[in-house]
Amino acid sequence: MTETVRISLDEVRTLAEAVLSRHGLSEPHVKAVADTIVAGERDECASHGIYRLLVCAHTIKAGKVSLDAEPVVQDIAPALVKVDAKGGYAQLAFNMGKPVLAEKARQCGIAAMAINRCIHFSALWPEVEELAGNGLVALAFTPSHAWVAPAGGKKPIFGTNPIAFGWPRPGPHPYVFDFATSAVARGEIELHRREGKSIPLGWGIDANGNPTTDATEALEGAMLTFGGHKGSALSTMIELIAGPLIGDMTSAESLAHDDGAKASPYGGELIIAIDPARFLGSLAAEHLARAEALLEGITSQGARLPSQRRYEARARTALGGVRVPRTLLEDIRALLD
Amino acid sequence: MTETVRISLDEVRTLAEAVLSRHGLSEPHVKAVADTIVAGERDECASHGIYRLLVCAHTIKAGKVSLDAEPVVQDIAPALVKVDAKGGYAQLAFNMGKPVLAEKARQCGIAAMAINRCIHFSALWPEVEELAGNGLVALAFTPSHAWVAPAGGKKPIFGTNPIAFGWPRPGPHPYVFDFATSAVARGEIELHRREGKSIPLGWGIDANGNPTTDATEALEGAMLTFGGHKGSALSTMIELIAGPLIGDMTSAESLAHDDGAKASPYGGELIIAIDPARFLGSLAAEHLARAEALLEGITSQGARLPSQRRYEARARTALGGVRVPRTLLEDIRALLD
Repeated sequence: MTETVRISLDEVRTLAEAVLSRHGLSEPHVKAVADTIVAGERDECASHGIYRLLVCAHTIKAGKVSLDAEPVVQDIAPALVKVDAKGGYAQLAFNMGKPVLAEKARQCGIAAMAINRCIHFSALWPEVEELAGNGLVALAFTPSHAWVAPAGGKKPIFGTNPIAFGWPRPGPHPYVFDFATSAVARGEIELHRREGKSIPLGWGIDANGNPTTDATEALEGAMLTFGGHKGSALSTMIELIAGPLIGDMTSAESLAHDDGAKASPYGGELIIAIDPARFLGSLAAEHLARAEALLEGITSQGARLPSQRRYEARARTALGGVRVPRTLLEDIRALLD
Repeated sequence: MTETVRISLDEVRTLAEAVLSRHGLSEPHVKAVADTIVAGERDECASHGIYRLLVCAHTIKAGKVSLDAEPVVQDIAPALVKVDAKGGYAQLAFNMGKPVLAEKARQCGIAAMAINRCIHFSALWPEVEELAGNGLVALAFTPSHAWVAPAGGKKPIFGTNPIAFGWPRPGPHPYVFDFATSAVARGEIELHRREGKSIPLGWGIDANGNPTTDATEALEGAMLTFGGHKGSALSTMIELIAGPLIGDMTSAESLAHDDGAKASPYGGELIIAIDPARFLGSLAAEHLARAEALLEGITSQGARLPSQRRYEARARTALGGVRVPRTLLEDIRALLD
């Protein structure tokens, strides 16, 4: 049993800001990155919480992040905005581009934002949740490092390529999903390796392209997409629209750029926002109520909505803080020495 | 062994036009619907070829199609166009809206088209392929009839909800995929029932929500999505963005509207188009070449691209025509009596 320590969300923020500052991130980046780390802990997404501070520290030490990059927002077409993150973390670039994206979506009905040349380690759900919280329908896509083989192939070419979606709802919580198009997260396979456990068939293949239940073989071979050829097609789409379409790297190019440093992926992200009010005009409320009937038709039969667990955690941690493994906390505090 | 007859694509067109005219479709609809039926046979997608004439005839006899609907194209926002199909087949509405969508995508960078109140029986790939052939990146989504249960649920609420994607490539053939978010097509389960064969686990559940290998039980219970909770999330997204977002029906509402007629689904479709030239400017050629490197990285390891089989069939049938089951041809010719 892992020994855990209870800390408040304020303490999470203080710790995150201290570690990020100590590693040389400029003030605006410290704030933006700490926000997503607090959000990860708050929603009990441990893999996107304070654990990521170790990943940040490693990526910074490897010289793979511009610590004080000042993102540049470019209005390139009536419904397109580009944010050049200039080699910094994506969060600040998103924050700076978001109001422009939202305004363009309201003006044009639909709009897209490319974030270019950013270091990506956060989940996509904070971004689509924020847009949906502003009444917009949002989609987000990003490649990562080439770890995943296409269906029918045996060599890694795709990243874990997540897709995220947000839909505005009455009340505090939009409908949000965010999932990797790989069968599982890479960290999940690494966890199995560390614990000496075998992995289920379908997660990965060995270097010869044969199905394997050996975590080490899968990590040295290739991961697989979820859903066979359909997941593989989606992953291809994400490579294309969040890579070459926006003038940014594919997962293979990101991994080549990494050159063995094992730093976070470097490249672009595509975010699409749609304003329901522009489609529906005065009937928006009526039609969004029909969407509620659909979502209730899911929950009323005992199925869960993708974001439900996170929102429940959020209510819990707002009152009681979070429990984190003591050794993890010690490892992170050691980063302050 | 099914006895087959070889007919030319010209004969397919003549037959399709004759059957559709005979059933009262107006001339512009005859032409538009026949185009997709010819495209289905040409690409050896038998389920979307002349077989669909039987479905058309049934849907028309059930009184579920407006035979001479004249779609109305409405420019509702700088990057949004709506086409009210007025209860007719979707194809003519798509053809009329497409130039407006393409123009808006070139003007704004990204644009979306809603087709409303249409009868849908065609695949989505002809539409995204056409847009990609014009140099645009395209996405298309549509609900259908509520046959599919959400992950963790047991009652059908989603349609087979396809998603299609097109990406422009040099040469005659864009990158295109088009797949249902259900584990398989409904027709596939019906085929198993007709042949008295069991279905694999994962295709459907019985009326009590238990996994079943019995095709009849699955058809009376619910189909499942592909890829578990991820496919279920995608299917939810498609319900929302091609239903309430555009002021049109969910799959449950379409099935209720059908009221046991077993006609084709009625509702909307959402199509998004993006102009790479607006994102990339003068660097478009260079970045689209990097996309080619990605696609070659898939095919060079022996994996297939989703549209490859169709394009190979297209080359074959252009020369030799198509083989269709004799009994199917007889059934269709009987519609002319």
